[in-house]
Amino acid sequence: MEASAAVESSATVSAFEVSKRPDTAKLVLNSPSPPSLREELATVVGKAFRPRASGGAGGGRAPRCVWVLPALQCVFPVLQWGRSYTLKSFKSDVMAGLTLASLGIPQSIGYANLAKLDPQYGLYTSVVPPLIYAVMGTSREIAIGPVAVVSLLLSSMIQNIVDPAADPATYRSLVFTVTFLAGVFQVSFGLFRLGFLVDFLSHAAIVGFMAGAAIVIGLQQLKGLLGLSHFTNSTDIVSVIKAVCSALHDPWHPGNFFIGCSFLIFILTTRFIGRRYKKLFWLSAIAPLISVILSTTAVYATRADKHGVKIIQKVHAGVNPSSVKQIHLNGPHTAECAKIAIICAVIALTEAIAVGRSFASIRGYKLDGNKEMLAMGFSNVAGSLSSCYVATGSFSRTAVNFSAGARSTMSNIIMSITVFITLELFMKFLYYTPMAVLASIILSALPGLIDIKEACNIWKIDKMDFLTCLGAFVGVLFGSVEIGLAVAIAISFAKIIIQSLRPQVEILGRLQGTNIFCSIRQYPVACRTPTVLTIRIDTSFMCFINASFIKERIIQWVREEVEASDGKGKERIQAVVLDMSSVVNIDTSGLTALEEIHKELVSLGIQMAIAGPGWNAVQKMKVSRVVDRVGEDWIFLTVGEAVEACLSAHKGTALEC
Amino acid sequence: MEASAAVESSATVSAFEVSKRPDTAKLVLNSPSPPSLREELATVVGKAFRPRASGGAGGGRAPRCVWVLPALQCVFPVLQWGRSYTLKSFKSDVMAGLTLASLGIPQSIGYANLAKLDPQYGLYTSVVPPLIYAVMGTSREIAIGPVAVVSLLLSSMIQNIVDPAADPATYRSLVFTVTFLAGVFQVSFGLFRLGFLVDFLSHAAIVGFMAGAAIVIGLQQLKGLLGLSHFTNSTDIVSVIKAVCSALHDPWHPGNFFIGCSFLIFILTTRFIGRRYKKLFWLSAIAPLISVILSTTAVYATRADKHGVKIIQKVHAGVNPSSVKQIHLNGPHTAECAKIAIICAVIALTEAIAVGRSFASIRGYKLDGNKEMLAMGFSNVAGSLSSCYVATGSFSRTAVNFSAGARSTMSNIIMSITVFITLELFMKFLYYTPMAVLASIILSALPGLIDIKEACNIWKIDKMDFLTCLGAFVGVLFGSVEIGLAVAIAISFAKIIIQSLRPQVEILGRLQGTNIFCSIRQYPVACRTPTVLTIRIDTSFMCFINASFIKERIIQWVREEVEASDGKGKERIQAVVLDMSSVVNIDTSGLTALEEIHKELVSLGIQMAIAGPGWNAVQKMKVSRVVDRVGEDWIFLTVGEAVEACLSAHKGTALEC
Repeated sequence: MEASAAVESSATVSAFEVSKRPDTAKLVLNSPSPPSLREELATVVGKAFRPRASGGAGGGRAPRCVWVLPALQCVFPVLQWGRSYTLKSFKSDVMAGLTLASLGIPQSIGYANLAKLDPQYGLYTSVVPPLIYAVMGTSREIAIGPVAVVSLLLSSMIQNIVDPAADPATYRSLVFTVTFLAGVFQVSFGLFRLGFLVDFLSHAAIVGFMAGAAIVIGLQQLKGLLGLSHFTNSTDIVSVIKAVCSALHDPWHPGNFFIGCSFLIFILTTRFIGRRYKKLFWLSAIAPLISVILSTTAVYATRADKHGVKIIQKVHAGVNPSSVKQIHLNGPHTAECAKIAIICAVIALTEAIAVGRSFASIRGYKLDGNKEMLAMGFSNVAGSLSSCYVATGSFSRTAVNFSAGARSTMSNIIMSITVFITLELFMKFLYYTPMAVLASIILSALPGLIDIKEACNIWKIDKMDFLTCLGAFVGVLFGSVEIGLAVAIAISFAKIIIQSLRPQVEILGRLQGTNIFCSIRQYPVACRTPTVLTIRIDTSFMCFINASFIKERIIQWVREEVEASDGKGKERIQAVVLDMSSVVNIDTSGLTALEEIHKELVSLGIQMAIAGPGWNAVQKMKVSRVVDRVGEDWIFLTVGEAVEACLSAHKGTALEC
Repeated sequence: MEASAAVESSATVSAFEVSKRPDTAKLVLNSPSPPSLREELATVVGKAFRPRASGGAGGGRAPRCVWVLPALQCVFPVLQWGRSYTLKSFKSDVMAGLTLASLGIPQSIGYANLAKLDPQYGLYTSVVPPLIYAVMGTSREIAIGPVAVVSLLLSSMIQNIVDPAADPATYRSLVFTVTFLAGVFQVSFGLFRLGFLVDFLSHAAIVGFMAGAAIVIGLQQLKGLLGLSHFTNSTDIVSVIKAVCSALHDPWHPGNFFIGCSFLIFILTTRFIGRRYKKLFWLSAIAPLISVILSTTAVYATRADKHGVKIIQKVHAGVNPSSVKQIHLNGPHTAECAKIAIICAVIALTEAIAVGRSFASIRGYKLDGNKEMLAMGFSNVAGSLSSCYVATGSFSRTAVNFSAGARSTMSNIIMSITVFITLELFMKFLYYTPMAVLASIILSALPGLIDIKEACNIWKIDKMDFLTCLGAFVGVLFGSVEIGLAVAIAISFAKIIIQSLRPQVEILGRLQGTNIFCSIRQYPVACRTPTVLTIRIDTSFMCFINASFIKERIIQWVREEVEASDGKGKERIQAVVLDMSSVVNIDTSGLTALEEIHKELVSLGIQMAIAGPGWNAVQKMKVSRVVDRVGEDWIFLTVGEAVEACLSAHKGTALEC
């Protein structure tokens, strides 16, 4: 009876509403229909092939490369900055380039060793990719070349297919194939605007992953540092420690350890000084090179290699040989290679873009993620054809490049030329370089990868994120690199699903003397309107996964209200207002849930009103005739209007009774 | 300069704000901290072991079963309704039970045939589970027993492990093992409140799945209908049609086809009549039984089995034998069994709960999903020990039970007793029953599973949902049952990820003469405030997957605004208001994005204000010091307040300049 009364009075009420607020309430249903799925797709695809992702509002404003020069400038930013390039900036770029090379050469050799390749391959990788990036990249500071994490990724994953010690030739050809594929993937990411794939690795995941990788890399260096001959191939901490323990039983030569530690201390000290006195930063930059020179000379002079000090030995002079013939795309392992390639591609991009963005924001300009991917991709494709392995932006070298005052990617060109000369002239010299020094150089680069402060910060802010971080860390440390990544991604997505699985449903109250309604849990001062229960559904997508949860929750609250009022004899609730302003989209299950809520309320003789549903939601409610069931007069723009309407409707019934 | 001006003036502004709105703006930051992850978990776990899921608000109001009788009543609802059970309702239950049995017996035999088991196993399954459910279930109309889809699931999946024709004994033991495990899964779902697992199959997915399954089942019946001896085991449409074509080349006996078709027509006609004249519904209910009796007598009289009419033959009198010894939990196939069991458990529950809810809502009472799961689970566990296979609520029989006027689960007891008697006395009779009649009975039950109207409806409302539906349908039809389910679930979850991957970001405008701000795309009448850009972030979880998208979008709009104003020389925007009222939660990536937006805006000399962020969001913004960066005075409760503050701040600067 009450229900019917409420319903029949709704007409009068809406009339009263209309007289009071001509438009707003009606607006909700008269809004234009939102873009259909087809149109949405069209825009997405359209965007994918426009040079700049452009916002729905000013869609047309992105510059299109329709003429040749702009088109070329789009692909080769060098044509843009090249014009206004001055001698002054060239000078500082030369300085930066040389500093960069002095750090890059020893690091490249070390990372090649980490990637289980001969030293020259590291240097090759510091020649070609920087040149390509220099003409295509949009970042001015980033320094391209081999990096620790990617080197570890490559070796740890490829050695599962073939043992580098047993069959170096095949191993190398697999490395080049992976590099080629990684480059192709990166290019396609750039072309098809798949930049968001990089977002799949959340910040927290990267922090955990990097820390784990750093520790794993550090453990790998024990081989060189202790001058061990036999060592495990697996990267997890357990088997590495086992290997070390067993190796220590064999006779080993403290000479290696001595050299490694002393130079490690030397490098760390210089870095400390560099940090302390910004003027002396170049000290930390050239320290690795100095250590290489000193140690090599020392070993050569004392012939320490005769007394068990491990030296590089395998060196090969001359510039990058072609490796086209070593890329096998129809070989037996292509599938595994593709898998490894995509992991390397994403990790490399993540690191490069993270590095690039951080320095771009310091200099106050903006990186175009998609152009970066193109540049990286082409660098790696070109690299793979010239005996390079996967290159990306190195954090340590980029920092040096930045503080050395690089003005443009020219510094990369300078560095690559320097490395080129080294390859031509000074390779012989590296014969006597002790492995221990390489280990110490790598070790000295690791602390930058472990960001404990950030981890604590994440713990403080978001426990779930910390779980992701921890998952990646533990996974890398005790499982393998892939396991770490898999765990991190799994947790990240579980987070999203859980979030939409159990959305918040809040009871709203009015703030005294205002027309503002907000959650009574969040704002205890807000007080509930008598006889009207206002509930906000806090999910942007009311769908199969949370619809029945929301329904149950709402119906239960209503029942409790009714029981309570019937029990205590206080005034019974007359209406329920659903604030759907957060609900952007809704699917059939969600609509069914709404209908069931409405049916339930009607059966209890309670009026249901809906406030400010999102664009798509309104549209679907119209199509699915939920609007007709609820009644057009009971759909409002704001909670305030809805509540007032319900109250006056109640007054209406009260008078009638 | 502007920025600094804006900032310094912010003090004065906020003062002015305070004088004007003492509380609201401050409220946002002074709200109590939301429940921590630990507390959240605690509540979830707490709920899990409370008899009724209870809403956060009136948490304590759920009745706890702390004393014996209530506890028993909790587990055995029969103790509740049993007391008030009258003779009158008993009478109508007897009628309903008998009607139910007359439909149930032939169906059970047919479904047993579909499950590739001897006929008596179908009847067994109509004896024990209904009894258990009768004392534990909360639905009054539902009719428990074997159903078509689950029978198909079982046979199609288990025959991949062992061929029922070659080794019926092993096949049977696997069936019982699966049934046992399915029961155990269902019980644990009920105990641990995992009811939401049933929601993972969206409504759309079920529609598509059921339709596909129905067609597959129908195709399977061609074997019986055409009296074929050799038939394929695979369920996909292609191989079935191949099998039929090849079989038609062999000599086949039209007798089967004749019998099948004539009785199919008979059953469908009676159903049509039953639909037309509600009084005669019992006609459609007993039609299958009549067909069985008629056809059997006919075959027996004419000895048609001598002339190629296929008959059941294998029948075995007597009640359920124990099957405890046939359940092997440590056998070689336990893993596959568990996989099959969980699929069957979920499908069975989905169907039962769907059926139960639909009729409960007609009668206007509420089902307790978790109790239903317990009841179903125990029915199947008990069944698996007494030679039954997976039972659940059948839609066709429940409908009959309902229209026959069942008042309580007593009708299930009556039916089970009737079947029991049949097993004891009339099994011999079934020897001559032609297979074709069973086929026609099954076929007659299928149209109820195909809901074209609903599919069209889904297409009209939500294209993505329709895609799910289609995926399930095509998957079942051309792949297999598992493939269909996998596809449906994959699409459903992809939908959620996509939704949070590309959230809507809307520019807001003010409705003339109100303080209401809404999307200018949705409400074109809303007009933007000059010099203030108001943007709403329409996602409930601003996280790693969408943070950078949102950031890019906002920064781009701002840049376009600035360019436009600088170009046309119209007034430059002074402030950006982010409406975060939809953002319930945020993770570290989201917070970083906010910081970067703020940094960007400051560099452009634009003031940033945040309006009404969600509870968790505010908390995390406080912890991560985003609040300090943005400035406490620039965080507001509503967009209106934020915009006013920005405008007056701008006035302030304007005056100062």
